[in-house]
Amino acid sequence: MEVIDLRSDTVTKPSEKMRQAMAAAEVGDDVYAEDPTVNLLEAKAAEVFGREAAIFMPTGTMGNVTAIRLHTQHGQEVICEARSHVLDWEMGMIAAFAGCQVRTVAAERGILTWQHIAPVIAPSIYYRAQTGLICVENTHNMAGGTVTPVVVFEEIWAEAKKAGLPVHLDGARVFNAAVALGVPVAKLTSGFDTVMFCLSKGLGAPVGSMLVGSKDLMARARSIRKALGGGMRQAGVLAAAGLIALEEGPGRLSEDHIHARILAEAVAESGLVEIDLEAVQTNIVIFRLIAGDAAGYVGRLKGRGVLASAIGPDVVRFVTHLDVNRGACERAAEIAVEELEC
Amino acid sequence: MEVIDLRSDTVTKPSEKMRQAMAAAEVGDDVYAEDPTVNLLEAKAAEVFGREAAIFMPTGTMGNVTAIRLHTQHGQEVICEARSHVLDWEMGMIAAFAGCQVRTVAAERGILTWQHIAPVIAPSIYYRAQTGLICVENTHNMAGGTVTPVVVFEEIWAEAKKAGLPVHLDGARVFNAAVALGVPVAKLTSGFDTVMFCLSKGLGAPVGSMLVGSKDLMARARSIRKALGGGMRQAGVLAAAGLIALEEGPGRLSEDHIHARILAEAVAESGLVEIDLEAVQTNIVIFRLIAGDAAGYVGRLKGRGVLASAIGPDVVRFVTHLDVNRGACERAAEIAVEELEC
Amino acid sequence: MEVIDLRSDTVTKPSEKMRQAMAAAEVGDDVYAEDPTVNLLEAKAAEVFGREAAIFMPTGTMGNVTAIRLHTQHGQEVICEARSHVLDWEMGMIAAFAGCQVRTVAAERGILTWQHIAPVIAPSIYYRAQTGLICVENTHNMAGGTVTPVVVFEEIWAEAKKAGLPVHLDGARVFNAAVALGVPVAKLTSGFDTVMFCLSKGLGAPVGSMLVGSKDLMARARSIRKALGGGMRQAGVLAAAGLIALEEGPGRLSEDHIHARILAEAVAESGLVEIDLEAVQTNIVIFRLIAGDAAGYVGRLKGRGVLASAIGPDVVRFVTHLDVNRGACERAAEIAVEELEC
Amino acid sequence: MEVIDLRSDTVTKPSEKMRQAMAAAEVGDDVYAEDPTVNLLEAKAAEVFGREAAIFMPTGTMGNVTAIRLHTQHGQEVICEARSHVLDWEMGMIAAFAGCQVRTVAAERGILTWQHIAPVIAPSIYYRAQTGLICVENTHNMAGGTVTPVVVFEEIWAEAKKAGLPVHLDGARVFNAAVALGVPVAKLTSGFDTVMFCLSKGLGAPVGSMLVGSKDLMARARSIRKALGGGMRQAGVLAAAGLIALEEGPGRLSEDHIHARILAEAVAESGLVEIDLEAVQTNIVIFRLIAGDAAGYVGRLKGRGVLASAIGPDVVRFVTHLDVNRGACERAAEIAVEELEC
Repeated sequence: MEVIDLRSDTVTKPSEKMRQAMAAAEVGDDVYAEDPTVNLLEAKAAEVFGREAAIFMPTGTMGNVTAIRLHTQHGQEVICEARSHVLDWEMGMIAAFAGCQVRTVAAERGILTWQHIAPVIAPSIYYRAQTGLICVENTHNMAGGTVTPVVVFEEIWAEAKKAGLPVHLDGARVFNAAVALGVPVAKLTSGFDTVMFCLSKGLGAPVGSMLVGSKDLMARARSIRKALGGGMRQAGVLAAAGLIALEEGPGRLSEDHIHARILAEAVAESGLVEIDLEAVQTNIVIFRLIAGDAAGYVGRLKGRGVLASAIGPDVVRFVTHLDVNRGACERAAEIAVEELEC
Repeated sequence: MEVIDLRSDTVTKPSEKMRQAMAAAEVGDDVYAEDPTVNLLEAKAAEVFGREAAIFMPTGTMGNVTAIRLHTQHGQEVICEARSHVLDWEMGMIAAFAGCQVRTVAAERGILTWQHIAPVIAPSIYYRAQTGLICVENTHNMAGGTVTPVVVFEEIWAEAKKAGLPVHLDGARVFNAAVALGVPVAKLTSGFDTVMFCLSKGLGAPVGSMLVGSKDLMARARSIRKALGGGMRQAGVLAAAGLIALEEGPGRLSEDHIHARILAEAVAESGLVEIDLEAVQTNIVIFRLIAGDAAGYVGRLKGRGVLASAIGPDVVRFVTHLDVNRGACERAAEIAVEELEC
Repeated sequence: MEVIDLRSDTVTKPSEKMRQAMAAAEVGDDVYAEDPTVNLLEAKAAEVFGREAAIFMPTGTMGNVTAIRLHTQHGQEVICEARSHVLDWEMGMIAAFAGCQVRTVAAERGILTWQHIAPVIAPSIYYRAQTGLICVENTHNMAGGTVTPVVVFEEIWAEAKKAGLPVHLDGARVFNAAVALGVPVAKLTSGFDTVMFCLSKGLGAPVGSMLVGSKDLMARARSIRKALGGGMRQAGVLAAAGLIALEEGPGRLSEDHIHARILAEAVAESGLVEIDLEAVQTNIVIFRLIAGDAAGYVGRLKGRGVLASAIGPDVVRFVTHLDVNRGACERAAEIAVEELEC
Repeated sequence: MEVIDLRSDTVTKPSEKMRQAMAAAEVGDDVYAEDPTVNLLEAKAAEVFGREAAIFMPTGTMGNVTAIRLHTQHGQEVICEARSHVLDWEMGMIAAFAGCQVRTVAAERGILTWQHIAPVIAPSIYYRAQTGLICVENTHNMAGGTVTPVVVFEEIWAEAKKAGLPVHLDGARVFNAAVALGVPVAKLTSGFDTVMFCLSKGLGAPVGSMLVGSKDLMARARSIRKALGGGMRQAGVLAAAGLIALEEGPGRLSEDHIHARILAEAVAESGLVEIDLEAVQTNIVIFRLIAGDAAGYVGRLKGRGVLASAIGPDVVRFVTHLDVNRGACERAAEIAVEELEC
């Protein structure tokens, strides 16, 4: 039985082309900034995002944690949406490493607007922790891969600037957002102080994420990355795959979005789930089982070769990606419906 | 013009009796545990709460921060209500000192129940920050001095124990809660691992709070207090006032509650505010100005000798206490209504 | 048997005059900066040190920790002498709260000079923790109350300024140093960015220390003090004693220094200890027992009513202070010698 | 001009065999523990060290930081030698992440013995930071690649156990130590609670280190690694090279040691340096220039194609490794001497 793995786009495996590039990569010691392949990838990422500089990170978590530490002081607050990845899936490092308290706001479909943010900026009272950073996520993973449009960001950028507050984008899947919106990532992210995006996940690299921003911030990020233990040596072997991911990955994300629609519509038609079809905008499908027992359902799917995630007692998530083609998604959709009807 | 200060019960001044006790206090070096007055106060507090031990703290914030650090490891999560004092008014020290992330739940009237808590306990996944502590507040300051009854706590105590989670009570005003419920504080707090309560605020001491709990926990609290800079030397001068506060303070809190009702009913009758009269259970009155502009309103009150706090753009808080008698409260209520009608 | 307590000058008890001042103190809520006695003490301390501002602290530890946090970022290094109080007796808070690593240098008699400091300033390499602060101590407690003269500090101030590094003085006993040198504290400390000094210890207040510095730094210190739980309410009761300590305490410290000489010379003459008599410059006497067993010796002294500290396996410390007069010191010296000769 | 790079063994480049293995590696999502190559490497490393478990790390810094966090609580002390890598080259993370204070002891040739450690274990006083961990380094990088023999460790293991203190080994180059001593790494490290060793450096992998220890500790290490951002996805591409490094790397380290002797003896004979030839025990050569100006000397070497590190104003370091063969080392030795004689 062939397995159709829809647990996450983190499971994507490197292509043959990536493997060959890794084997052939010119490398050096990146702690000394002497790895030509890493340097090339960083230059390329900076260019794609229209920024001065970029830095290669072993994971998106390290990229986000580095950015949060970059912008804040211990004892400050970080504003983020209530289901943010930085809050739920990054081991509490906002507190444990950056020493900051999260100030959360729940936003419909995870779309944080300035109207959500403004009321939770700390008042200027000496005996209150002060706001140090606003952190947004696009696409928003736990809200179902939803996309925040440029216009919403433009207001945040403008108002945050007035308020003297930096804004970081957790853009783990920002290319999915850009594809969904039909705008270049450079435009979609132009006003953020820093942007983290992943080369792994949908773009297909085995390992690696990038942080982009100004030259000064990236120089400081290099120190923080070293502190966190991200100062890898001949990292060019990974960067070689990352370059291919960056160049070739975005072009095919629209397929994943189509595949997600196929899955979403199939389960929606069953009438046995609650699903916000308008929220299925990229490669993630989240739905609630009316009959509950997500774990049981996911277990039954697994028995039939379809892997999914139970992300709540009655909530299931599918994520499409390059290792699952249209046929596999259609097959998975059939099985998903059949098991709903059990 | 005599000032009627309703900003907070933190403004209470020591009585003449307290001042004489401070002047006469027998003292020693409390870092060496040789201050007899501090030792007496700690023994007395432990007795009142039916616990093994207690420790004197310069502030309630230090008591709470110490307790949170006591129960947790860096990188864990602390569950608390969304408007908790430990979250909003303690400088982000849950993160900055204890290294923990807050996991908030909004609860009506600030009454956190096990039904709120259970769903936000972190699942046992190695790549999730784990829950380390549940922290509740009684009375709940920002919810308007609301009281959580024993039965709600009993369920939390029992379930938290099953879940292996410690529970700390921020009982800054726990005597107000006990008076409102008509139960002894020992009964109201018996299942908490630690309880912090303030000798200042409604009980009237100039400085000081206590943390109570087991002998072992209090021994460790002593180290944390020293780290935070709370190892005062001849602290008996403060403890002397604290002893009087502990003995004589609780008995008169019911007056403050009556005074709060006077204020609450007066502003409610004006029809110019939104107020939840059922939430006015102790010495705090919070209401929303239909016309908005809390800062302006508070400024006008100040001009007439009544001090209040604007705790939101259109939200005002009054707090009654021993330095404001019935007559003063009635006068303040009149002025409050007149200025609403301006 | 009357006890002669030479363990530390932290054991000093408030005078009758202080007690009366505490009983009569005009107070207010110091978190709102409304305590007139605290405000007066802060103004007075700033004046004595020739600075813009000062802030009252419950302990010297809180003053030092606040200063270290003020000047540094997490991940930096703090340079200090190898036996510094901030290193050995402040609970590792340089790391645990300020997130900084100590970089120690052993200096003869604890007199840290620029020649000690310069080589341990971190090189400007992005993958090295950078130096954030230099912290010196005058008098130096664990080196035996030794005094660093102004000229040594002048070089440190000048060079640190060139290097862009702030310098903090742990001046817990800086008045002892000033008396020993015959210079005003303002002159002795003029080039430090911040100075902490204790009102307790030799000056005799029951509780309290001060941090002095610029207005901006003290404003930020106020936030850090609040975070640490040092935002006491009617702290004027303590400040009232502190004012007397500040005014009247320094004038009598020279007596303590004479008393320390009496003790030092007595034990030196016994020939049974190693003692650096030139290091006995203020109110502290440290000596090594040739026969070892400091704990046993201290126990025997205690049996005869003299309290001392064993600060190492064979090292003993006496500290003179206002509660031990000349006669008591002479008596203690006799007993000390007799017990050496046992 | 061919460059002979003796700056560090971190500059080693992956062999063709490693590159092919990386290209062919079977991979999976290691966050889900599904990468077969990572799993194989972890099993193999555990076996080589005779332990229950191992975990792959992107860097040695992350391995050490994880171990230190594993064994300690915030506010404790970590005992290490005064020139330790964890102190000087890991960005102050003992403080910034583990919240611990370092307690350093200078030891001749970096060989920390129980006699150094015992006196700096914190006394059991509630107002002292307590010792949480002992951390040793073998070989000791900054002492010149010196080797601590098993017998020294055996005493540390036994005494630390009695004292209830865990001991971590920074074994970045532990295979060099094992080769120099002619004992298996399992025997050389059997009493440590955790051991970190590098697959990069002398063993030649492009990226990667391992932490080994008990199953329970490694399970907790997995959470800490995730927090630090070390939870890479298809890390098997790196592990494939790591497996070859682990299998084939140790066998050839003795050559590097011979090459280091060639360099050491050549510069020693010049009479223009101070060098402790007995300290040249593995692949590191450290010497002091009598004429000073290490930076100038290193610059001149660079001009002739030999890269070295100036690790102090007059101190130079050479490190031999697999990318520099005997001929290159002999050539480098000649140039080194010629430039000394300039």
